[in-house]
Amino acid sequence: MAENTVLIPAEVLREACRRILEKVGVPPDQAHIIADVTVEADMRGVGSHGVLRLSAYVHRVQAGLMAANTQLRVVRERGATVLLDAQGGFGQVAGVHAMNLAIERARQHGVGLVAVRNANHFGIAAYYTMMALPHRMVGIAASNAAPSMAAWGGTTAVLGTNPVSVAIPTGQDVDIVLDMASSVVARGKIRAAAAKGERIPLGWALDAEGRPTEDPQAALKGTLAPIGGPKGYGLALVVDALAGVLTGSDYSIYLASLHDLSRRASVGFVMQAVDVAAFSEWETYVERMRSLVDVIRNSPRAPGVDRIYLPGEIEGLKRQEAERSGVPVAVKVLEELRALAAELGVPVDLPAA
Amino acid sequence: MAENTVLIPAEVLREACRRILEKVGVPPDQAHIIADVTVEADMRGVGSHGVLRLSAYVHRVQAGLMAANTQLRVVRERGATVLLDAQGGFGQVAGVHAMNLAIERARQHGVGLVAVRNANHFGIAAYYTMMALPHRMVGIAASNAAPSMAAWGGTTAVLGTNPVSVAIPTGQDVDIVLDMASSVVARGKIRAAAAKGERIPLGWALDAEGRPTEDPQAALKGTLAPIGGPKGYGLALVVDALAGVLTGSDYSIYLASLHDLSRRASVGFVMQAVDVAAFSEWETYVERMRSLVDVIRNSPRAPGVDRIYLPGEIEGLKRQEAERSGVPVAVKVLEELRALAAELGVPVDLPAA
Repeated sequence: MAENTVLIPAEVLREACRRILEKVGVPPDQAHIIADVTVEADMRGVGSHGVLRLSAYVHRVQAGLMAANTQLRVVRERGATVLLDAQGGFGQVAGVHAMNLAIERARQHGVGLVAVRNANHFGIAAYYTMMALPHRMVGIAASNAAPSMAAWGGTTAVLGTNPVSVAIPTGQDVDIVLDMASSVVARGKIRAAAAKGERIPLGWALDAEGRPTEDPQAALKGTLAPIGGPKGYGLALVVDALAGVLTGSDYSIYLASLHDLSRRASVGFVMQAVDVAAFSEWETYVERMRSLVDVIRNSPRAPGVDRIYLPGEIEGLKRQEAERSGVPVAVKVLEELRALAAELGVPVDLPAA
Repeated sequence: MAENTVLIPAEVLREACRRILEKVGVPPDQAHIIADVTVEADMRGVGSHGVLRLSAYVHRVQAGLMAANTQLRVVRERGATVLLDAQGGFGQVAGVHAMNLAIERARQHGVGLVAVRNANHFGIAAYYTMMALPHRMVGIAASNAAPSMAAWGGTTAVLGTNPVSVAIPTGQDVDIVLDMASSVVARGKIRAAAAKGERIPLGWALDAEGRPTEDPQAALKGTLAPIGGPKGYGLALVVDALAGVLTGSDYSIYLASLHDLSRRASVGFVMQAVDVAAFSEWETYVERMRSLVDVIRNSPRAPGVDRIYLPGEIEGLKRQEAERSGVPVAVKVLEELRALAAELGVPVDLPAA
């Protein structure tokens, strides 16, 4: 835990989120979902998608850019697929509903694919894909996001870091939970380097002329570098084509940032569930997964490496620690949260920083 | 075109492949498919997956490690999903059949997901995903492969470069066809650098101790670097868990290389089709795709960049050129192909190198 963080019990943090959300008109059952998704990010060590975002959500609702009450409408459905319209509501509410629907369809058809349009930022993608795990299903999710990456060879941001998450049940002590952006790093890491006056590694970002840079200031004026060069660009583009274009949401440069209070943002995403039972007996599958997990974990290690982790395993360990000792929240974020509660006149049980 | 290549009409090359395959017992309709998939790789500039591989296929068949006649068996099916057993046959035959089945299921259920087990190397993944395009569907494919990448932090190869392809119809002059491995580069590029005595860029590979290296010889004794570090590792792992473990195929270190004539290789893959019509009117979709494609292509360009390409566009241009002027085949590969034909006593119309 970094020194400038405070440990707060998860339920205290969730309760604060719920009260704040309800105060601006979010129905209690929906506030419950949004608080759970949001605090889960902080618990898993993904603070960039946690309570840090709450004030932005609230400000969008207050500005009339986001619906406090998320009302989902079924636009189309055919067998294993459904298209939902979130009608400007919360991505978290739409996301949970969409994955539940995908799981239901997968139970019947082996696979279920639910697309959502006109939503907003949904937090961490892994929250939704992990919902499939107790059902002995694979969960897959992808969302578009406001642009921060250039096309390969371009200089201006035309694609979001468009995350993709895949959660795969293993039947072991830990599941496989991949949750990755298409960029090498998040912009937050570059901001942090800029704040400390440090250089950034070559390969993280491009300057405004599209050249690789080690200068965080130049990087912040430029774009984030995609993983694997043209590969990450391709990945971000296919996610935008599916989550943005196909669903009927905003895409590319037309998708507003969460922090842009001048216009609505119509975020799109897709959720898929795949039932293991459609392809294998559970016991056979678990036996084979054990063998795969063992090979990976028991790989000979490079110098200085103590342990080989599965995707999402480090986040899972952080979550356990947060459950035990409290959720680490940066002092600055805690102060903002308290200020937000005060501004709304909501009594919260949060400690002073 | 490189100087050490010969241009051969596509149909001449396909005919040579068909005759060679039929000679070792592949039924004519199957030889037709395998030749088409294989030559398509060379046409698209992916020579590493083209006729270069034919002798390995033939040698596996001759060694009794691969079935000349691919007989597919439906193991399970539920609504939108099917599991096929290729019973040791050709990946190309199983792949084409699987994608056709996925398209059929998608027409009915909106999405179709077909998994294949006990197959072999299927060539370029893009061949199958592009099959969905004329049906106004999105095609998705992923396959596992013999290990060449380490787990993140590991030193030995435990995962294949496990390709993922996504083809998205645009209704424009060019579609989006992503086909990417989970490694930064293919091993062939490192072999080429080693042959020329050149260094390789840092980031391409790790040495046998798991350290980044610029020495191609050390790299060939080590492993290929995954794109985005832990991200590419995660991507390769989820593909192996789905294509290998879930389907009931070999996985990780248990999957033999195409060139290992001591044992069978049971390759697994998954094919998915998503019907655009399940989510959008075609005309609306095409109008929106046009706008996305325009934004991407008209991005301001970095110095020295003449043009912004969509994923797969360069390969599509190479294919057009190969259609016009002939398929570029490396002299060495052409000689091997002629030697293979001679060895089998098959008359082929291939030019001498």
